[in-house]
Amino acid sequence: MKNWTYSFGCGHDHTDIGKSILGGKGYGLTVMSNLGFPVPPGFTIVTDACDTYYKSGKIIPKEIWDQVMEKIRFLESVTGKTFGAGPLPLLLSIRSGAKISMPGMMDTILNLGLNDETTEILGAATDNLRFAYDSYRRFIEMYATVVMGIEHYLFENVLNHTKQQLNIEHDWQLETKSLDKTINDYKKIVLQHAGVALPQDVFEQLRMAISAVFESWNGQRAIKYRKLNNIPDSWGTAVNVQSMVFGNMGADSLTGVLFTRNPSDGEKELFGEFLINAQGEDLVAGIRTPQPVTRKLAGDEPSLEEVNLDIFNQLKGLVLRLEDHFSEMQDIEFTVEKNKLWLLQTRKGKRTAKASIKIAIDIMKEGKINHQEVLDRISPLEIEKLLHHTIGDSVKIEVLTKGLPASPGAASGAVVFSSEEAEELAKRKKVILVRRETSPEDIGGMAVAEGILTTKGGMTSHAAVIARGMGKPCICGADSIIIDEKNNHMIVGQERILGGELITINGATGDVIRGEVATVKQKTFPEFLELMHLADVARRMSIRANAETTKDAETAIDFGANGIGLCRTEHMFFDPIRITAVREMIFAASKEERVAALSKLMPFQKADFKSLFERMYGLPVTIRLLDLPLHEFLPVTRPDIESFAHQIGLSVAEVEIRIKNLHEINPMLGHRGCRLAITFPEIYAMQAQAIFEAAIEVGNVITEIMVPLVFDVKEVEILKNLIEEVHQKTAPQLKYLFGVMVELPRAALQAAEIAKLVDFFSFGTNDLTQTSLGFSRDDVGKFLNRYQEYGIIKGDPFATLDQDGVGELIKIAVERGRAANPKIKIGVSILISCLSQLFY
Amino acid sequence: MKNWTYSFGCGHDHTDIGKSILGGKGYGLTVMSNLGFPVPPGFTIVTDACDTYYKSGKIIPKEIWDQVMEKIRFLESVTGKTFGAGPLPLLLSIRSGAKISMPGMMDTILNLGLNDETTEILGAATDNLRFAYDSYRRFIEMYATVVMGIEHYLFENVLNHTKQQLNIEHDWQLETKSLDKTINDYKKIVLQHAGVALPQDVFEQLRMAISAVFESWNGQRAIKYRKLNNIPDSWGTAVNVQSMVFGNMGADSLTGVLFTRNPSDGEKELFGEFLINAQGEDLVAGIRTPQPVTRKLAGDEPSLEEVNLDIFNQLKGLVLRLEDHFSEMQDIEFTVEKNKLWLLQTRKGKRTAKASIKIAIDIMKEGKINHQEVLDRISPLEIEKLLHHTIGDSVKIEVLTKGLPASPGAASGAVVFSSEEAEELAKRKKVILVRRETSPEDIGGMAVAEGILTTKGGMTSHAAVIARGMGKPCICGADSIIIDEKNNHMIVGQERILGGELITINGATGDVIRGEVATVKQKTFPEFLELMHLADVARRMSIRANAETTKDAETAIDFGANGIGLCRTEHMFFDPIRITAVREMIFAASKEERVAALSKLMPFQKADFKSLFERMYGLPVTIRLLDLPLHEFLPVTRPDIESFAHQIGLSVAEVEIRIKNLHEINPMLGHRGCRLAITFPEIYAMQAQAIFEAAIEVGNVITEIMVPLVFDVKEVEILKNLIEEVHQKTAPQLKYLFGVMVELPRAALQAAEIAKLVDFFSFGTNDLTQTSLGFSRDDVGKFLNRYQEYGIIKGDPFATLDQDGVGELIKIAVERGRAANPKIKIGVSILISCLSQLFY
Repeated sequence: MKNWTYSFGCGHDHTDIGKSILGGKGYGLTVMSNLGFPVPPGFTIVTDACDTYYKSGKIIPKEIWDQVMEKIRFLESVTGKTFGAGPLPLLLSIRSGAKISMPGMMDTILNLGLNDETTEILGAATDNLRFAYDSYRRFIEMYATVVMGIEHYLFENVLNHTKQQLNIEHDWQLETKSLDKTINDYKKIVLQHAGVALPQDVFEQLRMAISAVFESWNGQRAIKYRKLNNIPDSWGTAVNVQSMVFGNMGADSLTGVLFTRNPSDGEKELFGEFLINAQGEDLVAGIRTPQPVTRKLAGDEPSLEEVNLDIFNQLKGLVLRLEDHFSEMQDIEFTVEKNKLWLLQTRKGKRTAKASIKIAIDIMKEGKINHQEVLDRISPLEIEKLLHHTIGDSVKIEVLTKGLPASPGAASGAVVFSSEEAEELAKRKKVILVRRETSPEDIGGMAVAEGILTTKGGMTSHAAVIARGMGKPCICGADSIIIDEKNNHMIVGQERILGGELITINGATGDVIRGEVATVKQKTFPEFLELMHLADVARRMSIRANAETTKDAETAIDFGANGIGLCRTEHMFFDPIRITAVREMIFAASKEERVAALSKLMPFQKADFKSLFERMYGLPVTIRLLDLPLHEFLPVTRPDIESFAHQIGLSVAEVEIRIKNLHEINPMLGHRGCRLAITFPEIYAMQAQAIFEAAIEVGNVITEIMVPLVFDVKEVEILKNLIEEVHQKTAPQLKYLFGVMVELPRAALQAAEIAKLVDFFSFGTNDLTQTSLGFSRDDVGKFLNRYQEYGIIKGDPFATLDQDGVGELIKIAVERGRAANPKIKIGVSILISCLSQLFY
Repeated sequence: MKNWTYSFGCGHDHTDIGKSILGGKGYGLTVMSNLGFPVPPGFTIVTDACDTYYKSGKIIPKEIWDQVMEKIRFLESVTGKTFGAGPLPLLLSIRSGAKISMPGMMDTILNLGLNDETTEILGAATDNLRFAYDSYRRFIEMYATVVMGIEHYLFENVLNHTKQQLNIEHDWQLETKSLDKTINDYKKIVLQHAGVALPQDVFEQLRMAISAVFESWNGQRAIKYRKLNNIPDSWGTAVNVQSMVFGNMGADSLTGVLFTRNPSDGEKELFGEFLINAQGEDLVAGIRTPQPVTRKLAGDEPSLEEVNLDIFNQLKGLVLRLEDHFSEMQDIEFTVEKNKLWLLQTRKGKRTAKASIKIAIDIMKEGKINHQEVLDRISPLEIEKLLHHTIGDSVKIEVLTKGLPASPGAASGAVVFSSEEAEELAKRKKVILVRRETSPEDIGGMAVAEGILTTKGGMTSHAAVIARGMGKPCICGADSIIIDEKNNHMIVGQERILGGELITINGATGDVIRGEVATVKQKTFPEFLELMHLADVARRMSIRANAETTKDAETAIDFGANGIGLCRTEHMFFDPIRITAVREMIFAASKEERVAALSKLMPFQKADFKSLFERMYGLPVTIRLLDLPLHEFLPVTRPDIESFAHQIGLSVAEVEIRIKNLHEINPMLGHRGCRLAITFPEIYAMQAQAIFEAAIEVGNVITEIMVPLVFDVKEVEILKNLIEEVHQKTAPQLKYLFGVMVELPRAALQAAEIAKLVDFFSFGTNDLTQTSLGFSRDDVGKFLNRYQEYGIIKGDPFATLDQDGVGELIKIAVERGRAANPKIKIGVSILISCLSQLFY
């Protein structure tokens, strides 16, 4: 017969059953029990039982129930109390406990086992009728709301009404008589709203409470959370049934929580609070100000260390052994009942990002974990949090709507709907640029704005990419916002926000907030640098920066990058002087005109490459030849079109027609990347010449030329020949590497053929994700949230690589590429916040 | 030592060397020689020699030249003539001959071996100085233009000038004296333009001519052709050196060509022409009207059958044996020199599509080839040609520009630039609708137009798909056309075409032609039906039609389709009455509003499905749930927007803002396909309900529901559950199949997971091609031509599946899918012209 239940706290039980079967809470209790720590006796119904419950048509099967009954009898014998009867009634707490902590799971039910009769017996046995009545009141409220689904405010109303009548402020001021009346009122609410009376049968109470735990596994919030975090439905939750201990039995009783280290800054010091004569829920409800556990942190109220040194020392010894056991900072719940200490729970303590890093490094230094474990314990999100302005944890905010967290950091400013307005208004105040989507024309406005908010586009839309490059907060694809520039306002649900009104955006969460919110910024600290060093030692890949400007290059070197891995040449084209030459090139009617326009660009490109090479002296620089579709360079606004028409000597109408003709329906899949050079070889020829000439003049440069968006070996062959021809003419003595971006599924599949012709592959994960999943990064805002909610997509596919699809293509390409060309170098281009944001 | 040369026509030579080594021409000569047919003696320099020539730095290596000299000495002994000397000078023809016939390869050089001295000797030996001089004149002209690269018109000018002075019309009217003068003038041109004199050394002539053949392998046109047809550069060309025979030695000499069957209609009858006293080039130049070979086809001029029955009978016997040998219709060149018949060439005869089919079927019936070979011999393009109006082969057209051949057929009409205008003008005359691209708003205009021409978009753009559905000719992506609606004209290069002007489009070739061109249409014929029957027996896949309307369904049944394989439900939404409900659904602010709008659509969908099911009674119908992005249904033109705003009770500005907000940057990768149902499940729920209710009411329906654009098993799970829920509510007793479109690379890779949940996969090759290659079918026009030219892409990837990339993904998906679910059905959705066009 299967063991559905495992005891803890009963002295001779000692199991080695793991967390996945006992759940997190049950496992913690079992560990403490195994260590011989004072844990109120109880037992855990294993997680498997949850699935069995559902498969049995939401009924606790007899086999399980029989084992529960057996364990209850055992508890009675261990505690010397009786469930549902005197002389000493056994009271139980019922708590859920999945393998990992999950919001939306059932709250605790305390004091189960009380009914009209046992309450009186308890009062007599403890010689404390008030305590018994108060416990019964609490039980009814918890049971009715959690198990019977009655709304909580009904009970609150009763209690508030009573306190008003008596003119008292706190619950603990209620006398026995008032509590008796409250209990009667509570029972009436139950009868009225549930249609049945509160069960007096304590076994009925237990059965219902266990069922309620199982049912909460399929509560809406729990399901949503599981989907979002990709937790299998089959895991199920365990149920913990534990005999009650009471922190509310008088001045010699208390209840508290304790962290083994400071969860705010990670300092190695106990950090906790307690309340005398209270139950755990009082601590949570904040009805009295708790007292600190340690003297060091004590203010006006005396600390536990001062109040009861003996208990303090016992507690301290136990919790430090727990931390030692888990090699991890613990968060412990404890209760003292009549001077006897009990531990109710231990778990990994929540902490800030900073504390997370300090604690991991400190525990490593204590010799308890190794380097790799430190790295495993810190999530990239925690690092990210430290690099940007954020909204403090304690700040209360009201979120208007959510978009995609496109570039981290938080910022406040006045709403502006155009870049012109941004540039104008930014002279006087901080602005947030709000646009449907941004284009190269918006660069000026983005540069002066504190942050950018778009209603379209995804994590790698123009707005997102540029904002990250600029180190500015950005939210993209907030598609519930409707912008109405004409009327200078935007609509978010029922709210209307006027141009000039203040909003705050949190680019790390995607929250759009009305009004101004104070933000904070973390300073660097020694453990952070130690962590970075550990990462540096552990990594197997060389890290290079994205950089186009000398400023980027300098930042890259300062932060120890091993070179430039992606220099996007089109970013050198957007400068106002150059853009005209670019546009002339695009409008050229013949090869000759195109070559003429390109020859105007050539000195700029060469100068750019020279200064980049000079700055990177000796380090490799990978230059990606032009990738953007040509229409990205065209003027958008009427004044720009007019001015360009004037410059180029065409009518505005003519220019507009030409722009219309260059428009693409799916530019992402259009005339871009190396296709530009297949149709207009002059462009890459000019770029290659600029690179080679710059490299020769600077000397000692490791030049790597990279061709984007290939899908066939013939493209690679043609363009390799084109570049090699320029090389032979310009600088035959110069060594350079030639490679391609593998960013289309077909390129990955054709890797064997392509690899023979190139020195390196660089995986372009953005485009590979877009094409493999059929996801336009610019348009994903409309459905990505829903996809994440349903757990179809885990996280943002443009930030976290889709291993099943995109990952397999990369694997195929690496295997085929290496088999065909064992010397091939492999790189990957990923989207992370620009280094330049680090602690700036 | 390698054999670089092989003799033919020398009696005892008998090789079994194949076409790839001898080239097509050399192989034909060798076969005829082996059969003992009268072939002028000669030899072939093998194709390998071409590569060796280039590798030797464009020099004929000594080893090869030595063998050539040996063969020349052998030819001298066989013919009793001497190369470059008397008493009888050996004259040679030099011809190229690659493995397959290739335009751009070197023309023939005849009469090589003549110089000032041998010409006189030839004149004396043949007692025909005029013949010798005429031969020499022809040789100089050919050698100078082909080998020395001098422009042809220079020689023509001299000849024309001479004829004018002499007041004669034809070359053959020139006397010996005039020819002598012409020869001198020709020599002067050579000296002046080549800087060197015409070589008098006949070995020098031979060496240069052979080199010229090799060089022509790398001529621009030849390279382009090879790239376009994916012919490896390494193949090389052979060189055929053959002793001359002369059809211009008097009235007992002639030259001609003969097809073994009629190349126009495929009738089994000899079909050919000849000229008395002429060389082959005269036949090509058309200086005199040739006479027919057979009496049956003779008009005013007597036929060869009548002129010389003996020769005719010899010829007839030989060519029929040749056809028999090759089991294929042959095109033969022959010459009669002084009553002796010689065969100069045999090859597979070119023919019309109709003849192609008739000949293949007839030869099969003669027991010479089997069914499979008939099918192999007919290309899909030939079938395609028969199904549509075409421009007759003989019509001279001037092509303005070329676009993508998006929907076959040819049509003429007046240019209109808007659908409104099309609908107006079409009442009075035929129109061609010319648009940048079309949208659903253009349906009316497309319906009345004879054909559609767009400047953007590819083979599967809206215009192309709809045009094919309508059976109308369409050219897409003709991007050299600049439309200027304001000025009611379009610019094509230097030409301006006004609205209302007549143009003709050939949707089979992509040709845009100025003016009206007569078109022809093939009628069906018995051999075509026999071919279709053979195909039907041979095929291993079941064929289903694309159909949304009862008319489509009826056509599908008439043409023997095994069911409907793709019913695109969105096509049912474009009807004017329905589109408003669709738009209301899109504009719905809440789920309730959306459901309300959908419930208006529901009766239409149900009625559509019912009539489709009724028509297909008992045959399977695969219904694809909504796939199009929602903004495709929105109004585009100002009047439409105004009318919609009025209907929906919003201001025009409001509607415009909402439309702007629905705009997508890459709609192909945006909020479409099953993503619509993940975000708005109501849509698929309504469609499923309509399907199930219709199926139940009709009865005996095989319903297959298909979900488009999935990439993950979770999407499939969610939507399968959604549809199954509707099924349980609506028609639990009804059986149906559930499947998905595999049209994204990730779906193909995830096939194992997905296959477990579905009854069938249908490969959407369009979208799979778009995503695998990163090719937007709508924007491919800008670069596809260049890609085809370079041979990067063979043909249109949306018409011919890319086997390397897309094909591998399909293979992966089929293997994984079948392994996970052996019962899974596999289908493929391909783009072919709508069946409804067949012979209509």
